[in-house]
Amino acid sequence: MATGAPPPKGWQAIHDEVLRRIHARDWPPGHVIPNEVDLAREFGCARATVNRALRALAEEGILERRRKAGTRVALHPVSRATVDVPVIRREIQERGQRYDYRLLDRGTAQPPAAIRATLGAGEALHVTALHSADGAPYVFEDRWISLTTVPDAAAECFTSLSANEWLLARAPYTHGDIAFSAEAASDRDAELLDSSAGAPLFVIWRTTWDHDRAITTVRLAYAPGYRIRTRIGGVAAGGGQA
Amino acid sequence: MATGAPPPKGWQAIHDEVLRRIHARDWPPGHVIPNEVDLAREFGCARATVNRALRALAEEGILERRRKAGTRVALHPVSRATVDVPVIRREIQERGQRYDYRLLDRGTAQPPAAIRATLGAGEALHVTALHSADGAPYVFEDRWISLTTVPDAAAECFTSLSANEWLLARAPYTHGDIAFSAEAASDRDAELLDSSAGAPLFVIWRTTWDHDRAITTVRLAYAPGYRIRTRIGGVAAGGGQA
Repeated sequence: MATGAPPPKGWQAIHDEVLRRIHARDWPPGHVIPNEVDLAREFGCARATVNRALRALAEEGILERRRKAGTRVALHPVSRATVDVPVIRREIQERGQRYDYRLLDRGTAQPPAAIRATLGAGEALHVTALHSADGAPYVFEDRWISLTTVPDAAAECFTSLSANEWLLARAPYTHGDIAFSAEAASDRDAELLDSSAGAPLFVIWRTTWDHDRAITTVRLAYAPGYRIRTRIGGVAAGGGQA
Repeated sequence: MATGAPPPKGWQAIHDEVLRRIHARDWPPGHVIPNEVDLAREFGCARATVNRALRALAEEGILERRRKAGTRVALHPVSRATVDVPVIRREIQERGQRYDYRLLDRGTAQPPAAIRATLGAGEALHVTALHSADGAPYVFEDRWISLTTVPDAAAECFTSLSANEWLLARAPYTHGDIAFSAEAASDRDAELLDSSAGAPLFVIWRTTWDHDRAITTVRLAYAPGYRIRTRIGGVAAGGGQA
């Protein structure tokens, strides 16, 4: 804002002006910025408006807010992106496509060691399924469900309602770990996703927890071309196929 | 919380209790929940504590907050994950590894059509570079910089300071678009990343903007094994190589 320019209006304008000062090094990394009351006075707006702007900047990783020490410019600001991970059915339907679900297999078994390390010892429920969009394979779901944490799952057949949706409704999680990666399609991936073995697949691994008890670990292998799009310093968007 | 159980303490406990009521369908999708004052009274805590809990649930996509209509349970709660995208140098150094940067090429040219559609007509600065961790290739950066938005870039050689860092310091962005995908390594990717052509690579495409003017579009192709890890309903984590 040049000297003499009108003060910024609205929280978005205040957000941008604070960002400008940070980038111009008027407020360098580590600098404690003026408090909300002083900024509200300077900008001629409500304190709540300043608060909204600073909160957004904190969520973006630009500012660090501390109850007593005040708000300071982050020493190492990061780009922070928010990714929405909707239920698979909804992700497909929101693209205006027809959703189909097919259970491939369901059974109780001893999970592989890597899964056991998370879900704990003992047998678990293994469910594999294919989700399609307009008849084309969209994502192959390979899931293990803890029968200790979710004993009710043992009675579910998952033929019409996917484990993805059943679990969200019946076994709510408090938090989860998620990893995005690229994997070469296995023979099975390739067969199910109409692809070829070795093709690059976008893969999501996700484990959800009810406090300290693991509910489920799932590998979601998406058909080639899938990408997750989102924004930095803005609103979130969902995944989709390019 | 069973009847007669002590009220939750702290915002995290209130967060969990609200989540429990939502999952138990005491408060079904679309339900307008009690206001903060009433909840603070019920839980015997400060209104700010309730606010903190509800804000977290809104950020997680569980609640929808509207200034006048109150706070309601989201009709379609989504999993929401936050991904930090640090400067490449820091990402490597935070893994305790040695960072090396090598400029591959730098020149002014007419970008391909897809890039031109974003950066606008005219020549742009094309910079390619390799970032390494402990001597092993980590990510291949292929970047176009708008000379209209960032004319100063024309004078930069990018031999010691990467365009990644130079731009963050000198051409701050207001927002960006980001896409995560899996791509098969091209011959050039493979050569630079010590991989083989066709290998599955985790690729980030990112375009950043200063208001409505595009600054730069970059393709970051990571060496095989890279994954981004983060949390749902919790704190963010950075990318890394598994």
